[in-house]
Amino acid sequence: MHAPSTSFTLTDWSRERLARTEAALSAWVVADAPAGLGEAMRYAVLDGGKRLRPLLVLAASEAVGGNEAAALRAACAVELIHAYSLVHDDMPCMDNDVLRRGKPTVHVKFGQARALLAGDALQALAFELLAPEDEGIPASVQATLCRLLARAAGHNGMAGGQAIDLASVGVALDEEQLRRMHRLKTGALLQGSVMMGAACGRPDATAARELERYGAAVGLAFQVVDDILDVTADSATLGKTAGKDAEQDKPTYVSLLGLERAQAHAKELLAQAFEALDACGLPDTRALRALARMVVERDN
Amino acid sequence: MHAPSTSFTLTDWSRERLARTEAALSAWVVADAPAGLGEAMRYAVLDGGKRLRPLLVLAASEAVGGNEAAALRAACAVELIHAYSLVHDDMPCMDNDVLRRGKPTVHVKFGQARALLAGDALQALAFELLAPEDEGIPASVQATLCRLLARAAGHNGMAGGQAIDLASVGVALDEEQLRRMHRLKTGALLQGSVMMGAACGRPDATAARELERYGAAVGLAFQVVDDILDVTADSATLGKTAGKDAEQDKPTYVSLLGLERAQAHAKELLAQAFEALDACGLPDTRALRALARMVVERDN
Repeated sequence: MHAPSTSFTLTDWSRERLARTEAALSAWVVADAPAGLGEAMRYAVLDGGKRLRPLLVLAASEAVGGNEAAALRAACAVELIHAYSLVHDDMPCMDNDVLRRGKPTVHVKFGQARALLAGDALQALAFELLAPEDEGIPASVQATLCRLLARAAGHNGMAGGQAIDLASVGVALDEEQLRRMHRLKTGALLQGSVMMGAACGRPDATAARELERYGAAVGLAFQVVDDILDVTADSATLGKTAGKDAEQDKPTYVSLLGLERAQAHAKELLAQAFEALDACGLPDTRALRALARMVVERDN
Repeated sequence: MHAPSTSFTLTDWSRERLARTEAALSAWVVADAPAGLGEAMRYAVLDGGKRLRPLLVLAASEAVGGNEAAALRAACAVELIHAYSLVHDDMPCMDNDVLRRGKPTVHVKFGQARALLAGDALQALAFELLAPEDEGIPASVQATLCRLLARAAGHNGMAGGQAIDLASVGVALDEEQLRRMHRLKTGALLQGSVMMGAACGRPDATAARELERYGAAVGLAFQVVDDILDVTADSATLGKTAGKDAEQDKPTYVSLLGLERAQAHAKELLAQAFEALDACGLPDTRALRALARMVVERDN
């Protein structure tokens, strides 16, 4: 029995978008880069992950009636930045992880030097995707996407957050400091995904501001929930080692607030995300709403 | 005694451009990035190097009457890419160098994890510089600069060349394979510098093509001369360890062609660069000509 076409489910909505994203990633991350570099890049990117960031880009772009070709490129670009950050994060000088999603990490499989280069090349490719010789995508959109991605990925975004994370092992952070770390480390790229999707269209000032607020709430909620799952889920469900934060003496929302207040905080952030969508004045925000709910209610 | 103002010397021409580049780099690579990341980034970038790439950008832009603000951003962006590549190249999993320009390398000074992140953040910052919210730089120029830099830095440019380099230690390459490695590893970013400078203006098709040819010749000449200096110069003049290529059994133009033919090849490439400038139809190419000569006739 089919649901009526006016009903919305995230599963249905995601199916075609995920297929399109995977096909585009596979087409754009080519294996023919020299000396095995292409294989390492593909290994790092393909067939893995929830693709939350691409879905946020596509949902935000659809909400504002954005340029579809630009949105697909932006969706892939943010995923390449996410993928490169995992490759570098897993290296021995950082987290020294040997498994990710049940597979050997890139440096275990291809060696550290090639992992380092594959990460570097994925970052460059992300920006290459955003600036094609494609007259169907206005130059102003291309330039804006490059600006948003660079800011989200750089020293005042993801890389800056990782630096705080490195420096904070065994250090007592207060809630404000913890929030700052997470706003940068994971929040910036998640919020950037929403803003990049919005930049594929021409939202009015209210819609742009509320989508930015939505992105901030979802970005932070993602990390609060990550901290919660680290203590409540088992490793099999999580697909990575549970309990690792406490073992490494890393500050988390749970260590700071306790489990119950952390869970309440995640719900507050979800409510903030919904409020922003209610206020944005866009006609159809169902996908964005469902993605926010998924971020908070996921079990892995 | 002053030279007449119509005469051109590279030293005079460079002085003001270098000062402008250093000031811009110092302003844009800020120390206030979190958790020491900014300090590591500044250490990697400031007060070092010949700034050949920025000078190529500025000279090419001036030759085509390009947008000055765009050219200064492009000049700094290519230098940030160059700087990040050195930081990552020096790491233990790559070349494992502890000294650069007489100072401890970034990972020795700041630790490997922070060096890795500083390199990553410098790459992001390069693209951020190219896409400012600055209405004085047309979006089409911003997008083109991002495209050219991403291609020059990525898997079909610098990162790809480094992957070939890694894979070729102890391997007998023929001249064609060696040329491909160097066209990517060092040539792509040098040629990209010239093309980015040209993209700050609106060169006609002939000028654009000939500048691209000039950039290819200079890019390859740079590496041939590097290989020559590795056997002819002493470490003090060179500012790095001489004889390292042979010791590491790396293929070079000298090991492949012998010293005399390598020197003759460098002269041929200089002649090709001059030919391209003669054919480009631009009124004043003196700075580009002098930079090509400097690349080939330098002793360090």
